[in-house]
Amino acid sequence: MTSPAGTDSGLLAPTWAGSRAQAETTDEAFLRAMLDVEAALAHAQAELGVVPAAAAATVRDACRAGRVDLGQVAVAARRTGNPVPGLVTALTAVVAARDPEAAEHVHRGATSQDVLDTACMVVARRTLDLIAADLERTAVALVGLVGAHRDTVQAGRTLTQHALPITFGLKAACWLQGVLDALARVRATAAALPAQLGGAAGTLAAYQEYALLADASRPAPAVELAALFAAGVGLAEPLVPWHAVRTPIADLGAVLGLVTGALGKLAVDVLTLSRTEIGEVGEPAAPGRGASSAMPQKRNPVLATLVVSAARQVPALALVLAQAMLAEDERPAGAWHAEWQPLREALRLAGGAAEAAAELAEGLRVHPGRMAENLRLTGGAILTERLNARLAPVLGKAAAKGVLAEAVAEADATGTTVADRLAGLVPPDVLTTLLDPAGYLGAAGTLVERVLRRAGALVPGAAR
Amino acid sequence: MTSPAGTDSGLLAPTWAGSRAQAETTDEAFLRAMLDVEAALAHAQAELGVVPAAAAATVRDACRAGRVDLGQVAVAARRTGNPVPGLVTALTAVVAARDPEAAEHVHRGATSQDVLDTACMVVARRTLDLIAADLERTAVALVGLVGAHRDTVQAGRTLTQHALPITFGLKAACWLQGVLDALARVRATAAALPAQLGGAAGTLAAYQEYALLADASRPAPAVELAALFAAGVGLAEPLVPWHAVRTPIADLGAVLGLVTGALGKLAVDVLTLSRTEIGEVGEPAAPGRGASSAMPQKRNPVLATLVVSAARQVPALALVLAQAMLAEDERPAGAWHAEWQPLREALRLAGGAAEAAAELAEGLRVHPGRMAENLRLTGGAILTERLNARLAPVLGKAAAKGVLAEAVAEADATGTTVADRLAGLVPPDVLTTLLDPAGYLGAAGTLVERVLRRAGALVPGAAR
Amino acid sequence: MTSPAGTDSGLLAPTWAGSRAQAETTDEAFLRAMLDVEAALAHAQAELGVVPAAAAATVRDACRAGRVDLGQVAVAARRTGNPVPGLVTALTAVVAARDPEAAEHVHRGATSQDVLDTACMVVARRTLDLIAADLERTAVALVGLVGAHRDTVQAGRTLTQHALPITFGLKAACWLQGVLDALARVRATAAALPAQLGGAAGTLAAYQEYALLADASRPAPAVELAALFAAGVGLAEPLVPWHAVRTPIADLGAVLGLVTGALGKLAVDVLTLSRTEIGEVGEPAAPGRGASSAMPQKRNPVLATLVVSAARQVPALALVLAQAMLAEDERPAGAWHAEWQPLREALRLAGGAAEAAAELAEGLRVHPGRMAENLRLTGGAILTERLNARLAPVLGKAAAKGVLAEAVAEADATGTTVADRLAGLVPPDVLTTLLDPAGYLGAAGTLVERVLRRAGALVPGAAR
Amino acid sequence: MTSPAGTDSGLLAPTWAGSRAQAETTDEAFLRAMLDVEAALAHAQAELGVVPAAAAATVRDACRAGRVDLGQVAVAARRTGNPVPGLVTALTAVVAARDPEAAEHVHRGATSQDVLDTACMVVARRTLDLIAADLERTAVALVGLVGAHRDTVQAGRTLTQHALPITFGLKAACWLQGVLDALARVRATAAALPAQLGGAAGTLAAYQEYALLADASRPAPAVELAALFAAGVGLAEPLVPWHAVRTPIADLGAVLGLVTGALGKLAVDVLTLSRTEIGEVGEPAAPGRGASSAMPQKRNPVLATLVVSAARQVPALALVLAQAMLAEDERPAGAWHAEWQPLREALRLAGGAAEAAAELAEGLRVHPGRMAENLRLTGGAILTERLNARLAPVLGKAAAKGVLAEAVAEADATGTTVADRLAGLVPPDVLTTLLDPAGYLGAAGTLVERVLRRAGALVPGAAR
Repeated sequence: MTSPAGTDSGLLAPTWAGSRAQAETTDEAFLRAMLDVEAALAHAQAELGVVPAAAAATVRDACRAGRVDLGQVAVAARRTGNPVPGLVTALTAVVAARDPEAAEHVHRGATSQDVLDTACMVVARRTLDLIAADLERTAVALVGLVGAHRDTVQAGRTLTQHALPITFGLKAACWLQGVLDALARVRATAAALPAQLGGAAGTLAAYQEYALLADASRPAPAVELAALFAAGVGLAEPLVPWHAVRTPIADLGAVLGLVTGALGKLAVDVLTLSRTEIGEVGEPAAPGRGASSAMPQKRNPVLATLVVSAARQVPALALVLAQAMLAEDERPAGAWHAEWQPLREALRLAGGAAEAAAELAEGLRVHPGRMAENLRLTGGAILTERLNARLAPVLGKAAAKGVLAEAVAEADATGTTVADRLAGLVPPDVLTTLLDPAGYLGAAGTLVERVLRRAGALVPGAAR
Repeated sequence: MTSPAGTDSGLLAPTWAGSRAQAETTDEAFLRAMLDVEAALAHAQAELGVVPAAAAATVRDACRAGRVDLGQVAVAARRTGNPVPGLVTALTAVVAARDPEAAEHVHRGATSQDVLDTACMVVARRTLDLIAADLERTAVALVGLVGAHRDTVQAGRTLTQHALPITFGLKAACWLQGVLDALARVRATAAALPAQLGGAAGTLAAYQEYALLADASRPAPAVELAALFAAGVGLAEPLVPWHAVRTPIADLGAVLGLVTGALGKLAVDVLTLSRTEIGEVGEPAAPGRGASSAMPQKRNPVLATLVVSAARQVPALALVLAQAMLAEDERPAGAWHAEWQPLREALRLAGGAAEAAAELAEGLRVHPGRMAENLRLTGGAILTERLNARLAPVLGKAAAKGVLAEAVAEADATGTTVADRLAGLVPPDVLTTLLDPAGYLGAAGTLVERVLRRAGALVPGAAR
Repeated sequence: MTSPAGTDSGLLAPTWAGSRAQAETTDEAFLRAMLDVEAALAHAQAELGVVPAAAAATVRDACRAGRVDLGQVAVAARRTGNPVPGLVTALTAVVAARDPEAAEHVHRGATSQDVLDTACMVVARRTLDLIAADLERTAVALVGLVGAHRDTVQAGRTLTQHALPITFGLKAACWLQGVLDALARVRATAAALPAQLGGAAGTLAAYQEYALLADASRPAPAVELAALFAAGVGLAEPLVPWHAVRTPIADLGAVLGLVTGALGKLAVDVLTLSRTEIGEVGEPAAPGRGASSAMPQKRNPVLATLVVSAARQVPALALVLAQAMLAEDERPAGAWHAEWQPLREALRLAGGAAEAAAELAEGLRVHPGRMAENLRLTGGAILTERLNARLAPVLGKAAAKGVLAEAVAEADATGTTVADRLAGLVPPDVLTTLLDPAGYLGAAGTLVERVLRRAGALVPGAAR
Repeated sequence: MTSPAGTDSGLLAPTWAGSRAQAETTDEAFLRAMLDVEAALAHAQAELGVVPAAAAATVRDACRAGRVDLGQVAVAARRTGNPVPGLVTALTAVVAARDPEAAEHVHRGATSQDVLDTACMVVARRTLDLIAADLERTAVALVGLVGAHRDTVQAGRTLTQHALPITFGLKAACWLQGVLDALARVRATAAALPAQLGGAAGTLAAYQEYALLADASRPAPAVELAALFAAGVGLAEPLVPWHAVRTPIADLGAVLGLVTGALGKLAVDVLTLSRTEIGEVGEPAAPGRGASSAMPQKRNPVLATLVVSAARQVPALALVLAQAMLAEDERPAGAWHAEWQPLREALRLAGGAAEAAAELAEGLRVHPGRMAENLRLTGGAILTERLNARLAPVLGKAAAKGVLAEAVAEADATGTTVADRLAGLVPPDVLTTLLDPAGYLGAAGTLVERVLRRAGALVPGAAR
């Protein structure tokens, strides 16, 4: 057996390398979370009189001392299928070195899944809080962009082709709407993440046994213990153990997919709009950002690329988490074990993407001049829907559509404009009015207002 | 080009073949929903005075007449990428045959996506309502099982091995907890499904243009139109168009995955517990149910199998829906088009699974005798955790675990029981008490009560 | 229970609606394939003397008569978990009406899985043959494009930005390379698809029993039967039954994903290159193709969109098929049942995509003029890698990169060109040569030849 | 920005923690592979006279010296989107410290993707070789099991229920068949993994430019360079660059899914057969293996659990790799970046699973006594298919099935056996013969031989 000296510095994951989410989701962070859980359990048991207060304090101190060898625990996990037995052995030794008596109380009544599930929720909670903060930053930045570009007209594009004029303000408001959807769910999910306490088969039997041995007068001390324990680790109290009812895991997958999906929408639009030929937006400049190893002129849209790369991975990880619900028995052989790595990766991908997206939104450069140029590219054809609306009542729907299709085709073939082709049919001044993109924006302004109001209600600092 | 005579009778999908969900999700059902949407749009426009009331009535009658040829519309979709242009052509012809004037008002100001997205939400709404009803049936049945078997002791199993005693009531309560999780989300998602109204690029421009041509005094008639339209189709009013902000689609995928996941948990347990060697539960008997084409003796757990087969597919379909969020521009070329079939299949799989699960829960046969027999299989080893809790304070944690591991191994090797091996160490009457599975159920009763209370609060008819 | 009258005309699947692949993958086609399988089994048993030749002929005639009611069989599948028992009942009745004696020999010794697995392979074989033919069409068309545009210079783009000049011939050769990869695998997979014959638990016991009852002298008649049966249905002979070793299913998923992936690469490039602002290629024109329900001017890239929509779905379906390998026991409860619908959908999506891609490749319009215009957009910056290669040996790597980055930045800021900025540093005629895109194409020509040679070797009609 | 001190010791991935595959897939291993690639490139360029031999030697020495800081390179990747520019900067500094002249030749003409893609293939090649070796170990062990248990009769199970007798030898031969399928593909894929050399846009332009500057007489030196480079890194020569034709990536995903799928089949069967109630096989014992943190008696089937947990994750990772084929332009913004982490994780999961499966197969304990006991559980009903084959010709198919179904039901209801119920109908000695499981094994022996022959042909050491 080789050394477990593997590291995961993020070399292959620039989306989260160096991010705050990375720091919260390392193996060390999970190890610390598991130790925090053991400490909180001892403390909660001390509150119920099951464990001497001094022993609980010793356990807590040992948990904080950081003497447990991560590599040893990891490799030991291969023998038992999960890292907790090895962790308990190591922790027990550390405690015993301080107080052999206290060592008897380590992990008392507990099962591996209580420790690992709760630690996963603790890590998830911390990472979701980071994500929420970055979504808020993104929302505030987008509110700024929306406000600044409420009247900046731009080509709306469908199936890659110019369709109708829109405003860049409306486009950014749509990004904002997705971000707010994600933020609302992240907050709700974070608040609901439950601690896990069930014992070896979800009955809390050993916790209850130890508690009744200490004090036989309480009717259901283990249920009280679960509440104290949840409070101690800062998580929601579970209604019942969820050893084999994996709703919280599936929920995490779904919400992280929503985060990267909402940010991914923003990112794919930035990628498109920053194409050399389109040039309507640009990523924030920073030294070395977007540099190529080969081409001195390149400025790659790196932040958007990192966000998209996350958005292409998280749904697949969420799928593994959704399938974890097919958990046979009181603890499944494989479905549970397949959760941990995908959950961690989804957390740090979403966290890294949120950090990148915030930076992208805060620094996005917008080029109204290029937007105006591009709007002229189709020689007015981008406004044929409007012309159609005016001609149809006069000529009939089918005839109007035919006239306009022909005008567009001729303009295209002859290098002239739709206005040229319709000159005989519609008075010039009317045509000029009808072909002004700024005059055909529908309810864009009202729609923008609606999203801004929602942002103001949801995000401190986004009110205008 | 061959004939579009394909049918999908469910030959390859016994989970939903013949189910009520199938009937709500056929191509015909989607076609009807699209026609309902066209009718509702004309009606809403009539309320605003944009379309003559008589024309709207004619459109509605034509939509209800069912003269549109499904096969033609389907094949035509290959030319335009979606079925709506072909549908509009066909519908316009039907309306024109009644009243050429009215035909001018068909699909006025609308875009394909408004019609198809809204139709998808209408179908989703109807199917979610069916699913909610079947989850309620399942919940009520499980409440009955929980109540009947609150004290039925059974082996708890982890990683396929006997772990501790539990009650079958607690196991069924865990199933119920998952079902209630799913039900709560289904209801919330169904209530939030939004209508889609945005026009060709999400600005509502053509709707607004037509409305202002009819009555220039309203400030934002298209936004009013969206509200009227949503009410007309029985969906939530969208805050803004969601052409390229696909949260509702991703949400549907997630919630349907939760449904099949929660039911799948129940089903995998039924599969395990009905194994020939375990025999603790059996599927409800019905003529021909579970018959084999080869073996007269077989009674296959068919309902559970159908539920599991759905649960293995829906997360993959949900993934496609989650990835639909990466929707570039004002309408993406491909991401949108990839939603429809997975959404439909996920809906009918979840619907069929819910119907099968309800039948399964209502008719599940429980065999307490086999549960009791199986509990005895390990010669008492299933209670070593309890023995450990008693011996550890006396012998020390490590020593106690060693003594018990040895006793279990010896009992196993010699065909005796753990009680035999510990006879010298613990007084016989104490051993008898400690080795009674019914005496080591922890907080099972309290936990069961908690889930029953939740069921009573959520589901009419589940209160006890 | 409602009527099973669901149809699936392809309304929600324009990728395959009306395609030849649709016709091969309908429920009717699967039903016919299952009947073909029953007929082939009876015939193979007749060859071994297990079934009277006349009975086998009667079974075959009955199978061809098409009297089995699809809807009934589909709904009946809900009771048994798969459609075969219902089919056997219906077929037996049809045979019995002709000859009660012959009815005794229907499905003799067989199990549902033999019939359904073999039918799936038959349908897969037919659809793969269609796909191979369409990939060949596509390859031939691409060979033509490559030849015609070997020297058509175009901007190479990486991370959405202009990088270096390439040729459109090389780009099309890369598409071709992917298509040839897919074609080679489709052919290999199609040729290897095995018949399934195992009997109820994979031992061939009942087949053997009936055969030995007929003629006790053969040592392993059931293995002979498998070979005859495979030949009869036109599939490869299985080494052993693969009831629970699902390599063929996983292989199909992988190869179909490769097909849509390779075609999807072509399609995403067509989508990008046909953007309004880029305009370097256009889809083939056809009446009504790409029309919008709202905008008369729109010509949407519909074929590429349909291909991409397939490519976004097939990998998810392939995942379900890959997971089918986790098949417990001699036949799994759920994993097998989850294969059928994803397999069918993946087949028809890949088939429809292949048909659409062939049409796209055959009719693609290429606009060298726009390619040349776009190449000039960066004012020469697209050639800085070449300038760097010349300056680096003179100035040093770092200094050269710095000079060029500054020149590009200044040219960009001042609306001049890179040539202007470097005028003092490099002689004008040298600069003119170095900044000619056609002079910096590396080994593009040689690479193109390599792919053309491969195409010529693999595809009849692609040799040049 | 926080410290990049994340480690990935495998704490959350016991499937590969401490495995040989882990050691080959750490970030350090990827960094080393990238440095090997830079060294091989300089060396190949030296062979063509593009780079001085001394400079190439200095580059190689620097690459081997390991002075590049992994953490810095990882964090720098966030600015450029991939780790190569940071690596080149760091490597250049190391080379420059030895010989500033040589530093000019580092990464000459190269692009990030050449280095990273080739490094991924190098790592994949090394890991696939480990996997092939472990599959061979597994195959050899299974050949032993098959031979030892060719005549060990066991219940065949379908849809969780006893179906027919099989042999454990046949079951193990089916596992072996899957393992051989996987092995054959792993070998083929490993041999075909190509080096990547294309330059910034796939034309090899800069390589060609530098080569022609050095020696203008060669017609296509860059293509020669690619061949030399591929030989230098031990990979196949690419026909053309595959920057945006990602067949090799999709292939890797598929083959790794096949590996974990084939091993997963073995593992799910081990899990089922080692259930407390079934007990037909047991995992190999080892100190601490399968221990529980709570229950002294537990022996969890840990190896099978680890294999299954891998098999539940790899298909999802393979999906991300399959979707990487949708790679727009000459290098996509996001699709490429989403490959690296899933590829690495799939490699180490499959590698860890292969190592665990080999250990499992080599040490599997088989309990023929329990198999015999379980065969008796249904009171002979497991042989009703055979009885049916004998009675059907006499009584007619339908009548025979009816008689047997009734006999089974009565036997079950009355606690007697099928033999008791049929005593009047069939002579006792005939019944005894027909109800002997060992007499109804069909072609099991022949099928076993076929797989053993295949194993002998494919695997050294598996010939018998």
